Amino acid sequence: MAGSSFGTLFRFTSFGESHGPAIGCVVDGVPPRIPLTEADIQPWLDRRRPGQSRFTTQRREPDAVRILSGTFEGMTTGHPVMLLIENVDQRSKDYGEIKDRFRPGHADLTYHLKYGIRDWRGGGRSSARETAVRVAAGAIARKILGDGIRIRGALVQLGPHRIDRARWDWGAVEENPFFCPDRTAAALWEEFLAEVRKRGSSTGAVIEVVAEGVPPGLGEPVYAKLDAELAAAMMGINAVKGVEIGEGFAAAALSGEENADEMRIDQGGQVRFLANHAGGILGGISTGQPIVVRFAVKPTSSILTPLRSVDSHGRDVEVVTRGRHDPCVGIRAVPVGEAMMACVLADHLLRRRALTPDAPDLPILPRP
Amino acid sequence: MAGSSFGTLFRFTSFGESHGPAIGCVVDGVPPRIPLTEADIQPWLDRRRPGQSRFTTQRREPDAVRILSGTFEGMTTGHPVMLLIENVDQRSKDYGEIKDRFRPGHADLTYHLKYGIRDWRGGGRSSARETAVRVAAGAIARKILGDGIRIRGALVQLGPHRIDRARWDWGAVEENPFFCPDRTAAALWEEFLAEVRKRGSSTGAVIEVVAEGVPPGLGEPVYAKLDAELAAAMMGINAVKGVEIGEGFAAAALSGEENADEMRIDQGGQVRFLANHAGGILGGISTGQPIVVRFAVKPTSSILTPLRSVDSHGRDVEVVTRGRHDPCVGIRAVPVGEAMMACVLADHLLRRRALTPDAPDLPILPRP
Amino acid sequence: MAGSSFGTLFRFTSFGESHGPAIGCVVDGVPPRIPLTEADIQPWLDRRRPGQSRFTTQRREPDAVRILSGTFEGMTTGHPVMLLIENVDQRSKDYGEIKDRFRPGHADLTYHLKYGIRDWRGGGRSSARETAVRVAAGAIARKILGDGIRIRGALVQLGPHRIDRARWDWGAVEENPFFCPDRTAAALWEEFLAEVRKRGSSTGAVIEVVAEGVPPGLGEPVYAKLDAELAAAMMGINAVKGVEIGEGFAAAALSGEENADEMRIDQGGQVRFLANHAGGILGGISTGQPIVVRFAVKPTSSILTPLRSVDSHGRDVEVVTRGRHDPCVGIRAVPVGEAMMACVLADHLLRRRALTPDAPDLPILPRP
Amino acid sequence: MAGSSFGTLFRFTSFGESHGPAIGCVVDGVPPRIPLTEADIQPWLDRRRPGQSRFTTQRREPDAVRILSGTFEGMTTGHPVMLLIENVDQRSKDYGEIKDRFRPGHADLTYHLKYGIRDWRGGGRSSARETAVRVAAGAIARKILGDGIRIRGALVQLGPHRIDRARWDWGAVEENPFFCPDRTAAALWEEFLAEVRKRGSSTGAVIEVVAEGVPPGLGEPVYAKLDAELAAAMMGINAVKGVEIGEGFAAAALSGEENADEMRIDQGGQVRFLANHAGGILGGISTGQPIVVRFAVKPTSSILTPLRSVDSHGRDVEVVTRGRHDPCVGIRAVPVGEAMMACVLADHLLRRRALTPDAPDLPILPRP
Repeated sequence: MAGSSFGTLFRFTSFGESHGPAIGCVVDGVPPRIPLTEADIQPWLDRRRPGQSRFTTQRREPDAVRILSGTFEGMTTGHPVMLLIENVDQRSKDYGEIKDRFRPGHADLTYHLKYGIRDWRGGGRSSARETAVRVAAGAIARKILGDGIRIRGALVQLGPHRIDRARWDWGAVEENPFFCPDRTAAALWEEFLAEVRKRGSSTGAVIEVVAEGVPPGLGEPVYAKLDAELAAAMMGINAVKGVEIGEGFAAAALSGEENADEMRIDQGGQVRFLANHAGGILGGISTGQPIVVRFAVKPTSSILTPLRSVDSHGRDVEVVTRGRHDPCVGIRAVPVGEAMMACVLADHLLRRRALTPDAPDLPILPRP
Repeated sequence: MAGSSFGTLFRFTSFGESHGPAIGCVVDGVPPRIPLTEADIQPWLDRRRPGQSRFTTQRREPDAVRILSGTFEGMTTGHPVMLLIENVDQRSKDYGEIKDRFRPGHADLTYHLKYGIRDWRGGGRSSARETAVRVAAGAIARKILGDGIRIRGALVQLGPHRIDRARWDWGAVEENPFFCPDRTAAALWEEFLAEVRKRGSSTGAVIEVVAEGVPPGLGEPVYAKLDAELAAAMMGINAVKGVEIGEGFAAAALSGEENADEMRIDQGGQVRFLANHAGGILGGISTGQPIVVRFAVKPTSSILTPLRSVDSHGRDVEVVTRGRHDPCVGIRAVPVGEAMMACVLADHLLRRRALTPDAPDLPILPRP
Repeated sequence: MAGSSFGTLFRFTSFGESHGPAIGCVVDGVPPRIPLTEADIQPWLDRRRPGQSRFTTQRREPDAVRILSGTFEGMTTGHPVMLLIENVDQRSKDYGEIKDRFRPGHADLTYHLKYGIRDWRGGGRSSARETAVRVAAGAIARKILGDGIRIRGALVQLGPHRIDRARWDWGAVEENPFFCPDRTAAALWEEFLAEVRKRGSSTGAVIEVVAEGVPPGLGEPVYAKLDAELAAAMMGINAVKGVEIGEGFAAAALSGEENADEMRIDQGGQVRFLANHAGGILGGISTGQPIVVRFAVKPTSSILTPLRSVDSHGRDVEVVTRGRHDPCVGIRAVPVGEAMMACVLADHLLRRRALTPDAPDLPILPRP
Repeated sequence: MAGSSFGTLFRFTSFGESHGPAIGCVVDGVPPRIPLTEADIQPWLDRRRPGQSRFTTQRREPDAVRILSGTFEGMTTGHPVMLLIENVDQRSKDYGEIKDRFRPGHADLTYHLKYGIRDWRGGGRSSARETAVRVAAGAIARKILGDGIRIRGALVQLGPHRIDRARWDWGAVEENPFFCPDRTAAALWEEFLAEVRKRGSSTGAVIEVVAEGVPPGLGEPVYAKLDAELAAAMMGINAVKGVEIGEGFAAAALSGEENADEMRIDQGGQVRFLANHAGGILGGISTGQPIVVRFAVKPTSSILTPLRSVDSHGRDVEVVTRGRHDPCVGIRAVPVGEAMMACVLADHLLRRRALTPDAPDLPILPRP
């Protein structure tokens, strides 16, 4: 209600500020008897961890996660799993300048207006640091989904530069600091972003997350549709300004014929789709095809160029954001987007179990 | 949970199928002592009603709404308001052909796979007819918001054709059958869509909804952000494939400098924004600027061109959708988008009352 | 949130006032492919219907229920089931006297203070008439639970007169106007209540509801325990002032030895309990034993004796309640208590499906 | 949903096992700018802390609480408050015997059947140790309620021995190890319980919690009534088997005349009640009178007398519970009951703010 919980049956409740003692979450709705230790979560946090290249903030956080409840002898018990990540490398004094002035594009002003008080150190609760919690919760969601469902994300646009989809290679994603699936693009981006960073400027990005192996039937019409909840999940990530499913905004320009996902029965008696403009979702329910979501991240608001702003005393000021920042927050949004996809799918997998266990005797099922 | 309710404090629960006896909803969380009669709701339903031009379905539904509870002598009582809209013009036999075959792009297949049963008459529960309920609930939301908050929507792209924003005139919106704010574009669209309709084809669209006069402080970080909940609201409308706030996907290509919304203190001592790339939301919380949301609607899936599909017996078939359909469902999505904006804002207005009544003694506030 | 919905996965949202056009509810979370018509619901409403003996209100309501959505060809579709019951026999003028005066023991004063407006006709939203909705929803819950779970209620105390448990016969319950399982007591009660009614007075009662065949494992620790949710369900029925499970308040006076429910393995290798002080629930989770709940109903507040009260103008007044009333509202609370038991169990059955499907390979299970 | 959260607007999510590294909760829905430090919470935990007399478990837990988020410079920020209590004095080996055998009256069997796995050390998640979390959350709830609302609890029955209400003195409550308001009774109880403890037996108790100064208008009809939610709150406390409001079960034996709470206008023009059989709640909404709740706690199930039981291999066994236990868990339930009262009231205070801010121009209000 107050906004710190995500999900319904698989539900995590997050807490913590950027420069407080710790961040973390309580994950409720984890089925029992799933093997789970910190080692299942840490690798995903490591992917998102700051300071791994010159293109992400130089804050050095180990992001070491501890499980404080909900497991017994390495297995989940069905009770809430508490995940704790201590903050280590706070330099709150870097932020003294913004104590009473509002950085354009940040939540400084709105937090001030809404709450009348704010923890200004590093952005407090509004910092993207909180997304580490989502990645940790997402790691548990992946365990619920099992190995049959594969969720992968990639950066498909950096600033004005898009990848060439013909060169898409998932293998490339882990080879460059951008999670870019196009090796040629990655090389160009390196140059582009180095220049942006040198100028103290920033740039935006577009991320694509794909989930394969998702069974049909996930999603609850008409207000908890799978696509609606994915849209909320992605739009809720810091700095995101747009979300699309499958063909997305491009679908607006198409005709019904162009946008049609025709179907045939394949040799195994299963439904085969001839296209996936729908991005794996029809009527808010998964079809069995890959689920494809894209989201746009705005350029980091923290830049070295002085910007006109105001302070909490009602005076005009200029703001230059120093601190330690990512020139493109979109990069580290890739593992966050993957995690949120996992959380939404896990939630709907549990919801389907409750309300619509697989329909019996259906003569056809789409190919996974 | 099962997906038929929308909102948290202001919350409506919808029911009804396209060709059942009625559709409607129960609206809970309506504060008491608000004047409310059917006359407050009917005009909004009339805007969305089918059959008003040759560009929308020829089904003739009066969409007459009745209030069955929650008011007394023309005022709300604080108890649930039940809204009932009877279905009048069903022609279920038009749909006999799709009883066991799945129309591409519709929810036919996914409902079949999820539920193992479906009311195929006119699409049953998955029909866009249900959106009349959202418009009715939105009318109550508008009463909660009061006259100070103005919510208006417009079609800004029809198929590949965009409006010219320099010609935007809200006055034009009610003059053409497209809710188009650009008179020149509207004239061209008429020709374009007539041709699409003649071919039995369809096209997509982009809708923009703007809310003015919204006070700052609406939205709950970090998972019930105003933009996240708007994204879910819009993505949950039938046929929507993308949502963006403010600059949206275009923000990805900008630099931090280009995307900055700088601020100054105006002569009245209030904050004035010099731009609104953010679309009125920062950190998930309203800034006091206009809230700007756009969403993309795919082309109507029901077209006259035969499409390859399958049936529930596992056989290849061809599907031609007859029935009565909108060549562009995006048009009637305009009042639906407005209504959902109203519902989300009303919900967050009540939530703010509970948790963060206005901060006292703030020296500044954004200009309304 | 605003209080008109009950349940989480199996969830109904109620509306309607005593003297408005109709009452009803939308039931969401009904699994698909369950046979359901009005004939499955009407008999339960008939049991609760007023005017069936001289011991219940003489208001003549047919309480005829209509299903307006969520079924197709006699089967549930997985979509919300709308149940509508029209009000027929309102005599609102009987209530003119209480338009601005507050009947002691009723919600008149609190509704006035909370809402600043109230539909005073027959008690409006606070009338026990609303419980018909719960009975209707309970009928659907019973369909979800299936025939293996049997829920029965009985009146075990009328005013100061308790039944003799040694004479308990479920067969007797339908033979007398009190749902009394003790034929001897029923005969005495008839005399007692006739005298109470003649005096224009009223009396309280205690109801016991028993559910047999409930599988183990229903209930979610630690705040959605089965007993906690049953307590809320029963305490939420009009005029209820106390709820107990199993031994209840009597357990306070017992020693640990006296209150122990010992166990043995029976010949079939199953757990057999040697007692049921726990009332079928341990740690908030069903054990497989019968679930036993009792609740106390206060005497009807509407009596012919003039009572000192106040009016909305701040004046002292005397109130005599005429209208048509039950001398003991506890009687008609029996089917309501049964219905709420069914709703809570159905909800938890669905929740268990989602989060804790039966543990595999457990060597023991309690006898159903 | 999965049961580890309590409340709606004021909502806490609990985690932790009796012998795990820590217990705690995340409290969401705390309004901003409330002074809050550990010193506001610790005294309430100290009241509940074990090992303070020979009548409570000898486990030595400092129950030192740490706030890990949601405050800044000693004030709440409107963001989730994380409370952490580390476990210190676990002696898990005491519990080795119950690893595979089910203690009668405990959750051992039901956890085994529901989850197929359980943390048996000290009862794991089902231990009353978790109630420390509720007391901590309750301390924050008290801060929201403010000093005008006073919540106090007392033990009114120990085993078969009730207090004499004529001797009730709140001052006595803190003077004896039972929270007993009757000094004479307390002296007798000391003897009685010493004897029970010596025998290795246990006894039950009844607790009464009273809230004074509660404004009228709290509670949401018809399924989130104040009494319904209090019933759930109290019934959800470990070992509770019954809950009653005001006159409670005794109301069943009364006539309408006897149970009437008449009203008069007092000299200040306010409503004065002449009795409080209702326990401060009418129609599920607070009247402004003291709210009175009682709940019954069963005798501690852990006793030294061997009890017949079964183990997880399907064998008959005998169980003697050693560990460290309270001979009457009802004693330490007093601060827990108070805390839950505070949590329910705080939640409804926030809900009222959202939906029904005080009705304007009411000529009358009940005397505080």
